[in-house]
Amino acid sequence: MEQQTQVGNWGRWGAEDERGTLNLVDPKGVAAAAHEVRTGKAYGLGLPIQREGAPIFEYRGAPQRLTLTSQTDNAFQDFPGGSEVGANEDVLVIASHSITHMDALCHVQHRGKFYNGFDANTFRSHTGAERCGIEKLGAFALRAVLLDLPRLRGVEFLEPGYVVTRADLDECVAAQGVEIRSGDALLVRTGHLDNFKNETSAGREIPFAQAGLGVDAVSFVREHDIAAVGADNSAIEVIPFDNEQFLSVHIALLVELGVPLLEHLWLTELAEGMAAAGAWSCLLSVSPLPVTGATGSPINPIAIL
Amino acid sequence: MEQQTQVGNWGRWGAEDERGTLNLVDPKGVAAAAHEVRTGKAYGLGLPIQREGAPIFEYRGAPQRLTLTSQTDNAFQDFPGGSEVGANEDVLVIASHSITHMDALCHVQHRGKFYNGFDANTFRSHTGAERCGIEKLGAFALRAVLLDLPRLRGVEFLEPGYVVTRADLDECVAAQGVEIRSGDALLVRTGHLDNFKNETSAGREIPFAQAGLGVDAVSFVREHDIAAVGADNSAIEVIPFDNEQFLSVHIALLVELGVPLLEHLWLTELAEGMAAAGAWSCLLSVSPLPVTGATGSPINPIAIL
Amino acid sequence: MEQQTQVGNWGRWGAEDERGTLNLVDPKGVAAAAHEVRTGKAYGLGLPIQREGAPIFEYRGAPQRLTLTSQTDNAFQDFPGGSEVGANEDVLVIASHSITHMDALCHVQHRGKFYNGFDANTFRSHTGAERCGIEKLGAFALRAVLLDLPRLRGVEFLEPGYVVTRADLDECVAAQGVEIRSGDALLVRTGHLDNFKNETSAGREIPFAQAGLGVDAVSFVREHDIAAVGADNSAIEVIPFDNEQFLSVHIALLVELGVPLLEHLWLTELAEGMAAAGAWSCLLSVSPLPVTGATGSPINPIAIL
Amino acid sequence: MEQQTQVGNWGRWGAEDERGTLNLVDPKGVAAAAHEVRTGKAYGLGLPIQREGAPIFEYRGAPQRLTLTSQTDNAFQDFPGGSEVGANEDVLVIASHSITHMDALCHVQHRGKFYNGFDANTFRSHTGAERCGIEKLGAFALRAVLLDLPRLRGVEFLEPGYVVTRADLDECVAAQGVEIRSGDALLVRTGHLDNFKNETSAGREIPFAQAGLGVDAVSFVREHDIAAVGADNSAIEVIPFDNEQFLSVHIALLVELGVPLLEHLWLTELAEGMAAAGAWSCLLSVSPLPVTGATGSPINPIAIL
Repeated sequence: MEQQTQVGNWGRWGAEDERGTLNLVDPKGVAAAAHEVRTGKAYGLGLPIQREGAPIFEYRGAPQRLTLTSQTDNAFQDFPGGSEVGANEDVLVIASHSITHMDALCHVQHRGKFYNGFDANTFRSHTGAERCGIEKLGAFALRAVLLDLPRLRGVEFLEPGYVVTRADLDECVAAQGVEIRSGDALLVRTGHLDNFKNETSAGREIPFAQAGLGVDAVSFVREHDIAAVGADNSAIEVIPFDNEQFLSVHIALLVELGVPLLEHLWLTELAEGMAAAGAWSCLLSVSPLPVTGATGSPINPIAIL
Repeated sequence: MEQQTQVGNWGRWGAEDERGTLNLVDPKGVAAAAHEVRTGKAYGLGLPIQREGAPIFEYRGAPQRLTLTSQTDNAFQDFPGGSEVGANEDVLVIASHSITHMDALCHVQHRGKFYNGFDANTFRSHTGAERCGIEKLGAFALRAVLLDLPRLRGVEFLEPGYVVTRADLDECVAAQGVEIRSGDALLVRTGHLDNFKNETSAGREIPFAQAGLGVDAVSFVREHDIAAVGADNSAIEVIPFDNEQFLSVHIALLVELGVPLLEHLWLTELAEGMAAAGAWSCLLSVSPLPVTGATGSPINPIAIL
Repeated sequence: MEQQTQVGNWGRWGAEDERGTLNLVDPKGVAAAAHEVRTGKAYGLGLPIQREGAPIFEYRGAPQRLTLTSQTDNAFQDFPGGSEVGANEDVLVIASHSITHMDALCHVQHRGKFYNGFDANTFRSHTGAERCGIEKLGAFALRAVLLDLPRLRGVEFLEPGYVVTRADLDECVAAQGVEIRSGDALLVRTGHLDNFKNETSAGREIPFAQAGLGVDAVSFVREHDIAAVGADNSAIEVIPFDNEQFLSVHIALLVELGVPLLEHLWLTELAEGMAAAGAWSCLLSVSPLPVTGATGSPINPIAIL
Repeated sequence: MEQQTQVGNWGRWGAEDERGTLNLVDPKGVAAAAHEVRTGKAYGLGLPIQREGAPIFEYRGAPQRLTLTSQTDNAFQDFPGGSEVGANEDVLVIASHSITHMDALCHVQHRGKFYNGFDANTFRSHTGAERCGIEKLGAFALRAVLLDLPRLRGVEFLEPGYVVTRADLDECVAAQGVEIRSGDALLVRTGHLDNFKNETSAGREIPFAQAGLGVDAVSFVREHDIAAVGADNSAIEVIPFDNEQFLSVHIALLVELGVPLLEHLWLTELAEGMAAAGAWSCLLSVSPLPVTGATGSPINPIAIL
């Protein structure tokens, strides 16, 4: 029982909690972040959802937009005025973890447990997650801080495979002069997507390796009581994985601390706007689709600077 | 040519414009709305996405969450530490106009034209919308005003089929004492979804008719330069359609004025919070999935009060 | 080890066999069945695949036909003669076990084992069946015998929940005067689908219970060396399940004997043709889609009388 | 009216006919073909349906097999014996024209008309084909003749882009000494899929061009009253298209003559079996999925030699 509470944040918000560090988001803090809005400019952080030019692991399949109804269907012709009007509709077939997306707390299990010690067997193929599904997190708004590591290092992008450390993050905070508060989202820019765009538009394959957080950087999230972590790479964490442990940072953040992860965020324009505004915090809204039992969702977060 | 500019907002933001009234959203106004945030409480306005208990027109099909990977796959067992960890992922099959969703400006054509006079033939089954697809609107934030008509009338929900008029909206604005500004979103509460929830949880069928805007109410949107319209019903507009014209309000708002529509919003808790706060405006974030060429998207907007 | 071989047909065709009783199909027997063809009339045994009026368990979802390309896309207009021609294409979203379908040998596991003792863990969510997937069975042709139980009993359909016994089958064979040979398919008509059609077209709900094989009838299949079993009900076996064991006949036929099952076959017209021809055998072709790793497939078998 | 009957087979089987040349299939001929069965060996002509190594035009998307239920779901544990048994099921997402498939008569329109002069506007995005959908053809069996052109020419495969002529077909018939009868299926082997397999397994891209029928070869089909045409290439016809007309042979066969087309058939093993048997005809069963309104279907035909 005491053991139980020693795994990260397990038990911190009660034995039935399924929201993890989103519990740290305080309306007062959200109001404060709103009052700090400077330019009012809104940045969409989601990449285009399309078959080509998007970062997609092949096993997830490319997203499909299929036509459900078309204006040429003349579906309304028997109604008054119906022959002059037509409607187009689609059906989307899309992996919940494809392109820009959020991981629900049930996305990863470690030693048979999800966040807060929930038995991983509560996930079922036919009904999805009984515990820690994406619908338990809901849509949320919070203050976010962006740490722009390529800017700090004076490079276009961090070297593929570079392990971002606690010291890197601390140094970036100091250099940017930004305050971190409990309940903030942490957005880490590595430059990976800039490199991805350059390479794919030039017809080149991108390397497997990606810069990202190492296990050492987890203490930054824990000690600052960060509510959500996002990055411009595929898995927040460095690839190949740190510490000789598959998904080591996912285990530490998602399973042990209960931190929702926002992956493949497009942060470059926001970072430029922040640099111009001389401010590295913003108000962030994240709206995962509340699919009952789902393990993640495509997202298109909005940062208001 | 002059004729052309006389159709609603066609030509107002140039012949190539595909964003319609979202052009009215001014960063200064967004900053002002952010500074007016009172409680910092965030309300998700999306209904749960699931097969049962959700308002879905049958032809759109029920949403499906299918398992792509499961923690029991032992997919990682050949990697260091991989046998102790597992990942769950889904694929979603979902109509872009099902449950809580946003209509892109290409959703409806009238007499062969989309908003701004674009030829409706620019929509293709295999590639989707070349003009006015959802990706042209992107994610956006703006000030929103909620008009709570059932509260005004002292009823649980407006009578199915009730035609909301300009006078109703004006009266509600006056009664609530709320200011309307250019670039605001207008959120209209009819009580339809409350009735839907009550009836379906009691195992009863809901009537076909729904309260909603009539053609007469369009002038409110036009004269106030509203940027987006949302409601808690299926089509913003009254069903059966007003004015002996199929989709008459869609034609006026979406096609002629270029106003994105937010349908099946869950507004009841937000309305209660607003009543308690004595304030009927909020900061609203809307994050449609930026699917290239899509005609709409499921959404889960966030209202920060 | 000896124990192993005592479970039904496990080991009978070698430790690596994944085809089960389809090994009993002998080309000579197929040729003989072909030479016995009488009228040459072909009967399709698959029900229409559509959303309405089809027997579908709700959790499987209704099949969807979505438009991939439409003739109005003008996709070819840049090619010579392309503006005069158009092509329509669909994407199908369909449960592999919906409506008329075949169960692969990996469809059901019992005590952690598939047919032939293969470990059920060889099925993975992300890659499907490594052992006993539908592609291991392939398309096949064989002699088939139809036993028309409602005709035998002089009823339209067997009482829902009626347990078909070995004695029923033996009596029907004798009454019809049909020879059973090793490698034959056994088609059992219960009248369930006739009842389903009548009731649903009258707008009534059909009962949960269905007539079907009981555990006792399995000996008929085993002793006659039947290669495949089909029926006009949902699960071949009686519902509620016989012998106080969930899926008891599936376990006996699919897992222990390795017999592919053909469900929701439309047998009524074939039975009428056979009665008219005074012959109860035919040549049967079954063409499951060879989806690598799949657990079943919709089918549309052809019986040539 | 007379004009009407001069377009291929339009009107030949009545103004309402939607089955085209399948009307030529006579039960007597099917019985005769069955009686000619020699070895009784059955050949499946469908390629594996999987993401990799299959001939798929990119716009059709790769087929997806997603898990609907898994044996680990413990879905039955509340039922007697349910904890000892588990069931695996899939959902398939598959283009109806991908890999080995059959074209329905509504697949292609020419100058606004389908086969038999049906207005192409009878196809609707939301309901599919009202006329000439795949369900109108149903499953069918018939005698088939295979013409093995690479064998005739002593090559592994015909040169990509080679236009197969009437003379080629006549010469092959003579060389093989095979009789063509009214109502037969014509199967043409070009060797394209052999080349495809070789090249893709070697990691090379295959050329765009493919050998196939030219417009000149259509007279063979018409004069012999062929009921269905299949081949081992992507479109039956030569690519680039013959006669400076996009889809020229599809127009002639599918639209004008009403001949169902079977594409990407795997004919190599059947051809070898036929060569060994010294016989170039067989009994062929084709079982398209009877999806109401669909424009095609994946198939896995069976040839019994």
